[in-house]
Amino acid sequence: MLGVDGAQLARGAVDAIAARAGAADRDGELPAADLDELRGAGLLGLLVPTRLGGFGGGFADWADAARVLASASGATALVLNMHTSVVGALARTPDELARAMGAPESFFLARDQLLARAAAGEFIAVAMSERGAGARLSALATRYRRESDGYRIRGVKAFCSGASHADVFFVAARAAESDPTDPTDPTTPLDPSTSAGPSGPAMVSHFLVPSGPGVSVEPSWDSLGMRGTGSHDVRLDVWVPAQALVGGVAGLSLLVAQGMPQWLVASYAAVYAGVGRAVFDAGVDHVRGRRGTGMPSGLTGLPAVRARFGQADAALAALDAVVDECARRVDADPGSDLTNRWVWRAKLLAGRTVQDVAASIVEACGTAATRRGHPLERLYRDARCGSLQPATSDVCADWLGLAALGGDPEADANVARW
Amino acid sequence: MLGVDGAQLARGAVDAIAARAGAADRDGELPAADLDELRGAGLLGLLVPTRLGGFGGGFADWADAARVLASASGATALVLNMHTSVVGALARTPDELARAMGAPESFFLARDQLLARAAAGEFIAVAMSERGAGARLSALATRYRRESDGYRIRGVKAFCSGASHADVFFVAARAAESDPTDPTDPTTPLDPSTSAGPSGPAMVSHFLVPSGPGVSVEPSWDSLGMRGTGSHDVRLDVWVPAQALVGGVAGLSLLVAQGMPQWLVASYAAVYAGVGRAVFDAGVDHVRGRRGTGMPSGLTGLPAVRARFGQADAALAALDAVVDECARRVDADPGSDLTNRWVWRAKLLAGRTVQDVAASIVEACGTAATRRGHPLERLYRDARCGSLQPATSDVCADWLGLAALGGDPEADANVARW
Amino acid sequence: MLGVDGAQLARGAVDAIAARAGAADRDGELPAADLDELRGAGLLGLLVPTRLGGFGGGFADWADAARVLASASGATALVLNMHTSVVGALARTPDELARAMGAPESFFLARDQLLARAAAGEFIAVAMSERGAGARLSALATRYRRESDGYRIRGVKAFCSGASHADVFFVAARAAESDPTDPTDPTTPLDPSTSAGPSGPAMVSHFLVPSGPGVSVEPSWDSLGMRGTGSHDVRLDVWVPAQALVGGVAGLSLLVAQGMPQWLVASYAAVYAGVGRAVFDAGVDHVRGRRGTGMPSGLTGLPAVRARFGQADAALAALDAVVDECARRVDADPGSDLTNRWVWRAKLLAGRTVQDVAASIVEACGTAATRRGHPLERLYRDARCGSLQPATSDVCADWLGLAALGGDPEADANVARW
Amino acid sequence: MLGVDGAQLARGAVDAIAARAGAADRDGELPAADLDELRGAGLLGLLVPTRLGGFGGGFADWADAARVLASASGATALVLNMHTSVVGALARTPDELARAMGAPESFFLARDQLLARAAAGEFIAVAMSERGAGARLSALATRYRRESDGYRIRGVKAFCSGASHADVFFVAARAAESDPTDPTDPTTPLDPSTSAGPSGPAMVSHFLVPSGPGVSVEPSWDSLGMRGTGSHDVRLDVWVPAQALVGGVAGLSLLVAQGMPQWLVASYAAVYAGVGRAVFDAGVDHVRGRRGTGMPSGLTGLPAVRARFGQADAALAALDAVVDECARRVDADPGSDLTNRWVWRAKLLAGRTVQDVAASIVEACGTAATRRGHPLERLYRDARCGSLQPATSDVCADWLGLAALGGDPEADANVARW
Repeated sequence: MLGVDGAQLARGAVDAIAARAGAADRDGELPAADLDELRGAGLLGLLVPTRLGGFGGGFADWADAARVLASASGATALVLNMHTSVVGALARTPDELARAMGAPESFFLARDQLLARAAAGEFIAVAMSERGAGARLSALATRYRRESDGYRIRGVKAFCSGASHADVFFVAARAAESDPTDPTDPTTPLDPSTSAGPSGPAMVSHFLVPSGPGVSVEPSWDSLGMRGTGSHDVRLDVWVPAQALVGGVAGLSLLVAQGMPQWLVASYAAVYAGVGRAVFDAGVDHVRGRRGTGMPSGLTGLPAVRARFGQADAALAALDAVVDECARRVDADPGSDLTNRWVWRAKLLAGRTVQDVAASIVEACGTAATRRGHPLERLYRDARCGSLQPATSDVCADWLGLAALGGDPEADANVARW
Repeated sequence: MLGVDGAQLARGAVDAIAARAGAADRDGELPAADLDELRGAGLLGLLVPTRLGGFGGGFADWADAARVLASASGATALVLNMHTSVVGALARTPDELARAMGAPESFFLARDQLLARAAAGEFIAVAMSERGAGARLSALATRYRRESDGYRIRGVKAFCSGASHADVFFVAARAAESDPTDPTDPTTPLDPSTSAGPSGPAMVSHFLVPSGPGVSVEPSWDSLGMRGTGSHDVRLDVWVPAQALVGGVAGLSLLVAQGMPQWLVASYAAVYAGVGRAVFDAGVDHVRGRRGTGMPSGLTGLPAVRARFGQADAALAALDAVVDECARRVDADPGSDLTNRWVWRAKLLAGRTVQDVAASIVEACGTAATRRGHPLERLYRDARCGSLQPATSDVCADWLGLAALGGDPEADANVARW
Repeated sequence: MLGVDGAQLARGAVDAIAARAGAADRDGELPAADLDELRGAGLLGLLVPTRLGGFGGGFADWADAARVLASASGATALVLNMHTSVVGALARTPDELARAMGAPESFFLARDQLLARAAAGEFIAVAMSERGAGARLSALATRYRRESDGYRIRGVKAFCSGASHADVFFVAARAAESDPTDPTDPTTPLDPSTSAGPSGPAMVSHFLVPSGPGVSVEPSWDSLGMRGTGSHDVRLDVWVPAQALVGGVAGLSLLVAQGMPQWLVASYAAVYAGVGRAVFDAGVDHVRGRRGTGMPSGLTGLPAVRARFGQADAALAALDAVVDECARRVDADPGSDLTNRWVWRAKLLAGRTVQDVAASIVEACGTAATRRGHPLERLYRDARCGSLQPATSDVCADWLGLAALGGDPEADANVARW
Repeated sequence: MLGVDGAQLARGAVDAIAARAGAADRDGELPAADLDELRGAGLLGLLVPTRLGGFGGGFADWADAARVLASASGATALVLNMHTSVVGALARTPDELARAMGAPESFFLARDQLLARAAAGEFIAVAMSERGAGARLSALATRYRRESDGYRIRGVKAFCSGASHADVFFVAARAAESDPTDPTDPTTPLDPSTSAGPSGPAMVSHFLVPSGPGVSVEPSWDSLGMRGTGSHDVRLDVWVPAQALVGGVAGLSLLVAQGMPQWLVASYAAVYAGVGRAVFDAGVDHVRGRRGTGMPSGLTGLPAVRARFGQADAALAALDAVVDECARRVDADPGSDLTNRWVWRAKLLAGRTVQDVAASIVEACGTAATRRGHPLERLYRDARCGSLQPATSDVCADWLGLAALGGDPEADANVARW
């Protein structure tokens, strides 16, 4: 805990959010009131430095807050996780590291403006993924091109959580193909030394695009689980001024992402650890509520039920311990090899643990828990999504195996990750 | 295969049923057209002897048909499974066994009438379960009482698959409490020798109640999976004539159920084996359809994906082999100790295998497979239900363990099963 | 069952073999008396055609016999499995298929001589593997070279089961490197069209090398499990006459192996299914023997113990059903794509199931079962070996996944298998 | 870390211990030199207060030391674990708690003498278990009876780790049956208020019995794994003076054991976490040593191998995090409900994780790793023992399930634990 108790901030918001979780799931949309709740609790600025109006929290603060929120609504926690990952990556990359990556001085001002606005309640939605591209940046079809002292961005993004309520979108795009007949073609990388050419991942840049004309949300989200994220498509054909380029240097933000995999890898783990806790608590409530309705000692009297809860208890405790350890290391030694291993471990364990626990607890509770409206019906579907979100469990295991065996996970893995 | 190719009969119906599976899942209701399809294919009479107008099939024929149907729609296969379990238990209990259990001669005429009507297309919906009672007959709240040369039945049944389209309901009810102040109280068991008193399971009897006045379907079904069964509540306050008592003897049909656990235990296994096959096929379609869209050799090129399909292939093959072996034994030696072990094995393996396979194949296919409308999104939810349906996996494992260790599973188990 | 009841033959031998299993495990050597037992029961000729003095059995007969033998001693069953795989591959490859693969007429006479000698009690030990080469023939260091109307074979073989008691060794060797300065160099392939050159697998040939001078068994076997196979190293520096080349054509026997993966793939499954049965039976004996020694109803009274036995019962039943189905198909339609899938499935499931069952049953029985001398102590170690023997579980899963997804498992797999 | 770095102390001893681990396993005996090593490093007094000559360490110090030692030899770590559990339970029970349990003032002097002798290098072997009694104190057959101002103890103990080298034995015994004809019968409990009668667990007392006449070690240990503990039988027919009664009050030490389950429950977890680390490291060494011997990129190039190491890495990291969290809580808040939950979680996870990891890593490394002399051959057997040692995994899961569902694990569990 750096300067704030993330769990405490979150706790103030959870009752209202929990009350809306069922409806959000039914409708497949983030409740606007949930966002208001997060905003009101100051959670949009949890990781923004206090000098910019935020709480100055660190990764561990977010890991605590995320678990508390996710125990009320995994979907709403996931939406905030996207926002927080952008804020965190920017707020907690040391200045010297950013400079070493090539950030010009203008980067810092732009960054501070963004962070101050987040602390003031501006919600950033992340528009990185595209249908069919998986998590691979090299397959992005959204292109940017210099135009009139700014950039034209065209493409369709998918899985943009909270899109309907976004104040600004954090958009990944690839540089358009160079036109070799045009000597003034602006797609030349600003800093060729950090670029592998227009097809390389280094030419993927990120832009902050305000909602408004040229940006339309297409309500396409209709998923098995985590339905309340409202992760719709976003269609872009929009011009943005030069300062919308995050960091002011093409390709810069990617370097940040690679160096800080805690954002959008380990932070998912915290969210799903919260979902796991919700599963367990809903199961306990269900079983204890069944006491005395016919069976002498209720479901608690069944050894197989007790064994399922006992195994789940230990598995979730282990997950919490891993998330805690990971968070401590991220705050103490961000980006180191050992820290990054804990990041991948946390993601791998979260995905698998929560799914297994949900399956087992539903089995302990029986058919009644599969009725729509029962929290376990929703949570079982939510729990399935963790290991599918990037990096998937199979990718995490491969990364960790390579690291353990002396390979370079970033270079040697079967699948590109960025 | 006794006298008919069940799989072949089913194959004629599956295309149309498959086309409606998504809508049935969305609406949570059995499509009336599906029932017409089953009726038209003669599947309502698959197990009815040919002398009564049926196909004279055996358990293996149903196991084959169930798997084919379930590969198109697990929900529709489940609905037919309920009907077929009643038909099968009646059609395939040898006359001498029924006599030994106490069936009077009038039983055989009544049974043949029921079977002939099934072969003619009458659909029997099973109304045994009640909310909160689990599978335990001793906890049933629905009561019957003699009234005017017949019986008055009052209660509310739950989980009645296909209720909206039932021609007749197969209703389990307990004898009403005796009134010790009334010497003419009609709740005295007809045959005290087969009864353990009004609270004993032997006093549970089954009735055939035609749809119509006094029987109302309350559309309450809204479940995680197998939504297309339309397994609604049924409210009964109805008088039926004496011949509506199945077997003509209170408590008789229960004995049949105990002696023939293949009906509603192993037959579930066949349905879920078909669901597993559907999962696998949908996964293969998904992965092969992804070839060439960016990745050099598509998802097939990923070793982790191949391993998931390879493991699933072996697991489903094992399940099929077990269902086949079980079915062969049920037809050759019904009700023997060894046959019954195969019945419990098949149920246990089906529940667990199909759920595990669905989880793994979804993980192989990724987020795209979790979008509503994708067959895997529905199948993942359907697959969760197998081990929850009676007998649950935990109950099966306990039963088998007791049998292996020399106990009497019916007497010594932790949970009563009937 | 083709013409003999393999299980019945085996049953006559198991009591004596079981009595020696502990000592064989302790000593790490195949008891000579076990081989006498197998010989006396005619099991060396189980698959030899009756016209050559054998029992004319098929794969299913061996699968039955192997399970019975392995329930007494997995190690002894494995030794016979090696012998039987050579016999089976030769006896049950149709003549027309052998001709199509390039077998000259002389092949058939040589084959019949070998089979007749096996039926007469000659024990063939398989000397294919080498330390460090895994199962990959392309990595073999043992070389053969033409010399004086015959062949000189030099090399060291590992894992040769029953080596101490072999009458003849079935040896795999690669053609020595060609000497480009010698125009009469005899390493030129006999049939270049079936060869990929001296480094290709097609240049791996098999030889029948009698025990005697030039062949020395080096007692090196000292393994975790299956210790009683006495799978020692065999050092070869020996000249054999031309007719020792199996099939009379370089590279021929490999084609047989590829076409008939049941030998040494599915046949392992049958052996390990028998080991699994031994585990289960030893566990039941242990638990039932503990009744009444303090606990009210002994270990049987513990629900967790019952659940372990119940799960194991179902898993082993499934494995048996898969081995049976595989064996039926191997006999009915050998070498077809679908049959071969069952072969890989059987191997995959056997390796995993038996290991899991052993771990769980030992846990059910507790510390007392881990004392040396208790059958479960040995069986736990034996059970670990199944999935490690070729094809390993990971290889099987990859093969099956590729087959399911439309690839060619022989061509596309990550690891060469022959 | 209270006042010492347990890991650091242990590190000084591990190289020599590791070098003897193979021989210890082969011989089934604790090397005397290992004990000298532990003594020389001061590890026998790790938990003894500094005022008595020890290092004043806490549970976390032991958890660190145990993991380091177990990575060299799980067996030797287990031996020290038994000694340390006695020392720890005595050293770290607060005086006021001991008084509340009924300890007279003489207890503290006796305790301090014992601790000082441990710090001076006296090795305490634990002789609690008996063959057939499992972990249940109520089934103990060893009896004590007052005799000549002291006690006569008669019985045979089993599983006494390090027995051959014990300086003193920590012996559990039950009060002999009272003789109702003898009014001076000395078996009357000293303090009836803490006793449930001679058959109750409260009448189990512990004694410190020096090695020497009347105490004979019977070399009976011959186990699957952890062979180097030399956990032999100890036959007792010995008189000890009154002060040999631990705590000076019959039944007292049991209360300590119940209140402080970390000793001999969580401390096992630390040992097995070290074994898991040894498995992983041996696997990495094996795989990296295989690079370049034939396969292009060695076993590391196989995705299935990488996945196995990746999964193992995450599982072992989780186990370490749980052991760390448990240890922190034990030191900060010993005996609380929440702390005790972490104790059971750590034991449950250690037993299962290490066994699963060992099975998977052996599978990744292949047959070569199963040869005796390869560290994985030994470690695979050692890893099997964790979940069998008390409290077994099934007992832990039941305990945790009851605690989660609101039951009282000590009162309601299926199996008595003390």
